[in-house]
Amino acid sequence: MSITLYDLVGAEADRRFSPFCWRTRMALAHKGLEVETVPWRFTEKDKLPKPNRGRVPVIVDDDLVVHDSTAIADHLEERYPDRPALFGGEIGRALARFVQNWTETVVLPGLIRLVLLDIHRHCAPEDQDYFRRSREERFGATLEQVVHDRQARLPAFRTSLDPLRRTVERQDFISGKTPAYADYIVFGAFQWARAISDFEVLAADDPVRIWRGRMLDLFDGLARCAPAYGD
Amino acid sequence: MSITLYDLVGAEADRRFSPFCWRTRMALAHKGLEVETVPWRFTEKDKLPKPNRGRVPVIVDDDLVVHDSTAIADHLEERYPDRPALFGGEIGRALARFVQNWTETVVLPGLIRLVLLDIHRHCAPEDQDYFRRSREERFGATLEQVVHDRQARLPAFRTSLDPLRRTVERQDFISGKTPAYADYIVFGAFQWARAISDFEVLAADDPVRIWRGRMLDLFDGLARCAPAYGD
Repeated sequence: MSITLYDLVGAEADRRFSPFCWRTRMALAHKGLEVETVPWRFTEKDKLPKPNRGRVPVIVDDDLVVHDSTAIADHLEERYPDRPALFGGEIGRALARFVQNWTETVVLPGLIRLVLLDIHRHCAPEDQDYFRRSREERFGATLEQVVHDRQARLPAFRTSLDPLRRTVERQDFISGKTPAYADYIVFGAFQWARAISDFEVLAADDPVRIWRGRMLDLFDGLARCAPAYGD
Repeated sequence: MSITLYDLVGAEADRRFSPFCWRTRMALAHKGLEVETVPWRFTEKDKLPKPNRGRVPVIVDDDLVVHDSTAIADHLEERYPDRPALFGGEIGRALARFVQNWTETVVLPGLIRLVLLDIHRHCAPEDQDYFRRSREERFGATLEQVVHDRQARLPAFRTSLDPLRRTVERQDFISGKTPAYADYIVFGAFQWARAISDFEVLAADDPVRIWRGRMLDLFDGLARCAPAYGD
């Protein structure tokens, strides 16, 4: 029986732009599990399965509803231990948490200040007010003000990627010779950005860009084939 | 037969202050291996075992000379597989490299600009000229200039530790419930700083400080008992 994933979309039902849903999407592919995705918009709180926390990703795996990308990854690793490992043991799982915390304190906060207005452009019309109001409250500024100096902030953002850059200069994937969950965590951030913004955040010769290309190629180009900007 | 570690010291032979030697020292203790340390100063290039690369850490394990903290950790994991794991598999090893690259692009560069002059104070008199000349060339400024605004830079340094902070708020060690090599990599940086500087870089209630305390307690207080400042 296939797994159902509720997946954030905007105006177009096939443009998937949650960094957290992308983690789950890649993790499911890594495990070789069939998935049926249900497009879901910010304001469709009632359409989620019960128990309903009003957020995605959420998966329905047989009779089990699992919320939150981290809990979903743990669930998949436990329920499908004979399929390729996402963590490779307790130390690998703990260190993936460090990569996640780096992504969530450095990469995502840096990226959102570059692409915030572009997200709004891609929201469904009925979601745009909700998005603008909630984000402007969070940032204490209009969406336009948040991104207006993004070109000037780009070099600092790129420098903040140095730990990732040095890693993928020296090994093909963050997780080593082959990708695993830590790669999907970081990749989710970049895939989200390129899904909704044509503002290219990585220089053409950046090793991070080259790693991103390797990620786009995985699983028969799963992420490359999804609607997005750039390569 | 015990392992010999050449370990950086300054004016006092028991004040060990290489972040890289501390990684090795903790890794040896993690493996439960006996170690004999040989105090070594920057200008004593000729006193190192052959083949001599002029740097520490270097260990002599039986008939084998192993240079570089990363190669030493790999060597210990391979040669002593039945003792507690440093990496816990290939994913764990790869992710420890990411933690290392974060440490070497964020933590160490941040710390050295806070404590550079203090290192000079602790160097052996015969090493001070070498240290000042080589570091002033690297920084393009006098040691005094590098650290003069350190108080003003402290908040940004502390913010740069957010990925670590969030991790050790949620789990006891970077590597999970128990410490492993990724913890020793990051700890080496803080232990180096406190070995040679009374400038406390962490606030008293910082979860990073509390994690550092847990690290100081390991192996019967191995690092806590070493000459250093603060707790």
